Amino acid sequence: MSETRILSPDDLEAALRQIGAEQYHDKHPFHALLHHGKLNKGQVQAWALNRYCYQAAVPRKDAALLSRTHDIALRREWRHRIEDHDGGGRGNEEGGIERWLVLTTGLGLDASYVVSTKGALPATRFAVEAYVRFVREETLLEAVASSLTELFAPKIHQERISGMLENYEFITDDVMRYFKRRLGQATEDADFALAYVKAHAHTAEQQAAVLNALRFKCSVLWAQLDALYFAYVTPGLVPPGAFVPGKS
Amino acid sequence: MSETRILSPDDLEAALRQIGAEQYHDKHPFHALLHHGKLNKGQVQAWALNRYCYQAAVPRKDAALLSRTHDIALRREWRHRIEDHDGGGRGNEEGGIERWLVLTTGLGLDASYVVSTKGALPATRFAVEAYVRFVREETLLEAVASSLTELFAPKIHQERISGMLENYEFITDDVMRYFKRRLGQATEDADFALAYVKAHAHTAEQQAAVLNALRFKCSVLWAQLDALYFAYVTPGLVPPGAFVPGKS
Repeated sequence: MSETRILSPDDLEAALRQIGAEQYHDKHPFHALLHHGKLNKGQVQAWALNRYCYQAAVPRKDAALLSRTHDIALRREWRHRIEDHDGGGRGNEEGGIERWLVLTTGLGLDASYVVSTKGALPATRFAVEAYVRFVREETLLEAVASSLTELFAPKIHQERISGMLENYEFITDDVMRYFKRRLGQATEDADFALAYVKAHAHTAEQQAAVLNALRFKCSVLWAQLDALYFAYVTPGLVPPGAFVPGKS
Repeated sequence: MSETRILSPDDLEAALRQIGAEQYHDKHPFHALLHHGKLNKGQVQAWALNRYCYQAAVPRKDAALLSRTHDIALRREWRHRIEDHDGGGRGNEEGGIERWLVLTTGLGLDASYVVSTKGALPATRFAVEAYVRFVREETLLEAVASSLTELFAPKIHQERISGMLENYEFITDDVMRYFKRRLGQATEDADFALAYVKAHAHTAEQQAAVLNALRFKCSVLWAQLDALYFAYVTPGLVPPGAFVPGKS
């Protein structure tokens, strides 16, 4: 009922921020364990190698978005996200995926094993590919809106940088560079996407779709932490074939 | 039968070049008319505004290819094609789509009318979108192979530059800059794609698929000229709603 009236752009923003306040994965107990030094190295390894699947999928979902729009201005604005993650431009910049591998290698994982995603939890892959499919198949407006979890990312990145550096002797300043770099990138990207949905979600149906796209994306992130918690914390039931700390 | 044996990489290349020699659209009678000064200005306008649909679709098909591959090296190599067409990078470069609009504007067409694609022939749009769909849905190898018409593009661009400049008083050096710029770009891109398919088409089935992908792409280009010929040369039957020279 409440989603059938048309919101002002500012009310739409407030509703999006409210979803983040309630559903973003910084509220997940796995993150509290991670940031407060309550995980052992094997559990941090499991988190990092599963999260790699997400990092590696991001350029595919951004390219899917580019492929869908006839709006050259939107394509020009959006395409740097692919470069940010893939790197290797004219200056041969390090991309986000490489920076993530610095973290996993720093944690003692073999890079080729991480890149293969063989040790990742099936639930991780399902969640990540659900995100790619969403961006490929739902409306362009929903595809843009699904990126809006970046509104809430700088806070979690900051918590992660300070919490992990403080609490784990196996985490060094250098391996955290993915998060440091993302602090600025995520803010700019989120500002653009927020302005876009505020300008383009005119009808109550479009606004409801935008809000649901953000809820969907929050669930993509949340489901990954559920799977990590189940496999590596409690009950600690690792699915067949998935990474077993100390054995890979 | 002949496509069930495995070709050497060089024989595969020879078979691809043979397809180009027989099926590339430089053999179409419309091109002979265009290059030899046998069209009037309205017919050249019709060609340019229809071909805009193809130019505008290219970044979407290249983004679709990026979205499909998990190979970061391939994504890094391929993504500059999007920049080449969309322009607007850090140096705010002019892209291929803008350069095409220089041509259509130089021909006296209103840019917003061209960009709207409202005056384009339905057959043009169907052919162009069939190409985007092919790259989105067929195998990655076929998607790469479908770009191989660029092997044959420099020759047609060169013919077009000299033939059109020589034969039409309404064509100036400046409006031909799309083709001049493509001379270098298309050669580099074609070399990469050719090396890719030679390295990745191992089985007879894959090689047959690569050859068919190039045939398909040749048909995408050819069908556009058939439609132009039918509507604007003989019998000159313009479909309802499509561009009518002198009236738009």
